[in-house]
Amino acid sequence: MTNLLTMNQLSNEEIFSILEDAERYKTGKGWRPSDLVFVSNLFFEPSTRTRFSFEVAEKRLGLEVLNFAAEHSSVQKGETLYDTVKTLESIGANAVVIRHQEDHFFEELIGKVSIPIINAGDGCGHHPSQSLLDLLTIKQEFGRFKDLTVSIHGDIRHSRVARSNAEVLTRLGARVLFSGPSEWQDPFNLYGEYVEVDEAIKQSDVVMLLRIQHERHNEKTNPANYLEEFGLTKKRENQMKPNAIIMHPAPVNRDVEIDGDLIECERSRIFKQMENGVYVRMAILKRALQQVQNNQEVDGHVIYS
Amino acid sequence: MTNLLTMNQLSNEEIFSILEDAERYKTGKGWRPSDLVFVSNLFFEPSTRTRFSFEVAEKRLGLEVLNFAAEHSSVQKGETLYDTVKTLESIGANAVVIRHQEDHFFEELIGKVSIPIINAGDGCGHHPSQSLLDLLTIKQEFGRFKDLTVSIHGDIRHSRVARSNAEVLTRLGARVLFSGPSEWQDPFNLYGEYVEVDEAIKQSDVVMLLRIQHERHNEKTNPANYLEEFGLTKKRENQMKPNAIIMHPAPVNRDVEIDGDLIECERSRIFKQMENGVYVRMAILKRALQQVQNNQEVDGHVIYS
Amino acid sequence: MTNLLTMNQLSNEEIFSILEDAERYKTGKGWRPSDLVFVSNLFFEPSTRTRFSFEVAEKRLGLEVLNFAAEHSSVQKGETLYDTVKTLESIGANAVVIRHQEDHFFEELIGKVSIPIINAGDGCGHHPSQSLLDLLTIKQEFGRFKDLTVSIHGDIRHSRVARSNAEVLTRLGARVLFSGPSEWQDPFNLYGEYVEVDEAIKQSDVVMLLRIQHERHNEKTNPANYLEEFGLTKKRENQMKPNAIIMHPAPVNRDVEIDGDLIECERSRIFKQMENGVYVRMAILKRALQQVQNNQEVDGHVIYS
Repeated sequence: MTNLLTMNQLSNEEIFSILEDAERYKTGKGWRPSDLVFVSNLFFEPSTRTRFSFEVAEKRLGLEVLNFAAEHSSVQKGETLYDTVKTLESIGANAVVIRHQEDHFFEELIGKVSIPIINAGDGCGHHPSQSLLDLLTIKQEFGRFKDLTVSIHGDIRHSRVARSNAEVLTRLGARVLFSGPSEWQDPFNLYGEYVEVDEAIKQSDVVMLLRIQHERHNEKTNPANYLEEFGLTKKRENQMKPNAIIMHPAPVNRDVEIDGDLIECERSRIFKQMENGVYVRMAILKRALQQVQNNQEVDGHVIYS
Repeated sequence: MTNLLTMNQLSNEEIFSILEDAERYKTGKGWRPSDLVFVSNLFFEPSTRTRFSFEVAEKRLGLEVLNFAAEHSSVQKGETLYDTVKTLESIGANAVVIRHQEDHFFEELIGKVSIPIINAGDGCGHHPSQSLLDLLTIKQEFGRFKDLTVSIHGDIRHSRVARSNAEVLTRLGARVLFSGPSEWQDPFNLYGEYVEVDEAIKQSDVVMLLRIQHERHNEKTNPANYLEEFGLTKKRENQMKPNAIIMHPAPVNRDVEIDGDLIECERSRIFKQMENGVYVRMAILKRALQQVQNNQEVDGHVIYS
Repeated sequence: MTNLLTMNQLSNEEIFSILEDAERYKTGKGWRPSDLVFVSNLFFEPSTRTRFSFEVAEKRLGLEVLNFAAEHSSVQKGETLYDTVKTLESIGANAVVIRHQEDHFFEELIGKVSIPIINAGDGCGHHPSQSLLDLLTIKQEFGRFKDLTVSIHGDIRHSRVARSNAEVLTRLGARVLFSGPSEWQDPFNLYGEYVEVDEAIKQSDVVMLLRIQHERHNEKTNPANYLEEFGLTKKRENQMKPNAIIMHPAPVNRDVEIDGDLIECERSRIFKQMENGVYVRMAILKRALQQVQNNQEVDGHVIYS
């Protein structure tokens, strides 16, 4: 069973193995099961990038896709996540990709379902496929992580991405800086140092902006002065190191986290990140299903080989 | 034209033929049309099991799937079911699978559309693919229906499953018992005898629990004492015959119809039923489309052969 | 880049080329890219015919389909149409089919995304694939457009179809008449002459009815006397020329625009139009993607050839 639940569970070797696979897929290489393999995408929250890049990845691997939408399902009749996943397993899903609003939704599943679970984002918890695509984008640019300075800006506290990335970047030898409104600092995130925004931007090889997640705040934050106080203005972009790049997991709140004109500027890797997301997710799916292939026989015939 | 609308329409021979096909599919055998065949799934009510097991069945048969969701369709502009199905037929659907909240929704379609209609549940009426998967599960277990005692427990009145199953089990030689709250007895269901719950459970080879369909009741029933009074408690499970099995069409209201701990107990065939659902639906689809194949040519070329 | 945004953009030659391709597809001929090609369908308004006939067309061409539903996407988090399309492009969509409630939604995309955009209906603006399937239906019937009289009846003002069709039919040599309530006349539609309903019907080779688009009106129009005053009654149908045909883009408001009994009468081409929609959309997609094929390489490998 090869779940992908959090970045912490992955050793450095496993991370590099996923990135290598992703880079091979980027050159047009592929991996295909020889028999019918079903993957179900369960998205309990709206998503464009993560949802569709998983679907594209699945189809590029020749997998059959079952798109599960909670509001058309028996979740409406009170069925639990556990029973839903168990049902999909029973009718033939070979893996499930889940985004869910609850932190650690996967804890009620581990050890109880026998197909791999891929976490596509749990509440304010983890988002490992996003972290891996961020790593791929950085690796493509700099060829390494060691001694890079990566500053993460904004809504640290509510960010699945900030948590995963700070831990793994530190582990891979990068220095992590945080910046943003003090009320959004995250006392549980121990892998970075809080720095004033202009200072962070000057020192960074990678300026990683986060989305203000209005949907997770009780009162809507007033974004009126956010760009000037905490965001990436053109003036700040001018202060970046010559080869430094801009990243953002998107969707972008234009002119809040970043001046709209910078989204597609030369330094920006925002759309590159999305493209990389497909290759990384192909690698994640192959990792999940390759394992199954060795272990699981169903009714006497191997599902794929 | 081979619709599947109700169990009554199927002769015993036809039932056994479907079950045999399903058993062959379970061993990995298949059936594939040689050309592109489209099946549209029209679900006007939430569903996980039925909806996805039809989709898996379709994909295992190599069919192209069109997933129709009423709320994104012209049903929003007042288009009728008849016009919707006629439209799907016109644009190339070779069969339609329909779940609809109205009893006998299919009556307005019969004889007026020229593609097979598969009833995936009509209101409180029929649910033939569920009955067939129940039959397959019982046949796998006991090798026969004759002289088995099957008790059906709970919300008999609102159950599509109870109606279909009582008729067909009786016809196949089984004895049917009903049990549950008196206000949920069904005066129109003539194929079983009402018995007190403990008595029913002791006599049964198959204990078939039904889901309390809160969404079809005007006032929510209070499920507080339901388990104790009418449900399958651990104590009652202890009274079951040695080889007796537990079935439930799911979704299960845990600790209402059945003690949550029993759902995956050794006697339970609840997830087995779901798995069987895929094979039965493959057989249903093949039956529907094989017929079409012999009869229907479109614009001079046979759709599949 | 071969977008399809409006009928005006198409020369007569291009129109005839699309119709010829469609006619070939109707005979069972096909066109398939040799590699994986993804098309994303973005429908921001409910649709049955247009949505599913694009999906059937895509699958007949062997394309991979990404069905985007706005309410499950990051549009819920405020993401713009531009950012959505740019995202789909980044993750591998080779073309997008869009229906959107805003007139000229495509203006914010033109020249900024590098994949073809196919307009599947913009607000009260254009609906070129509907116009093309109407043209195909007329051409099949009469073999020409020149000197035909086509009357368009009803809600001219709110109709995407009326606008496109009046312009292109005039251009192809037909005479266009309009008929309907005076408050629905369209001062910006210069390609036809307003005529009283009985007169229009007597003169027409093609009686083209429009749907009353309740969802675009502020107050619901009272349809009580509409059929008698402006619609196609049986009495009026009797006055039609011997070979004249009836068309309607559907969904039909039965017994409002047309007597329900006439929808499937001998003169009616309403369901024929739907069937033709698939072939026309195959031709539109091939036109869009054939162009891309010659122009676009992604990361060193041609997407399809």
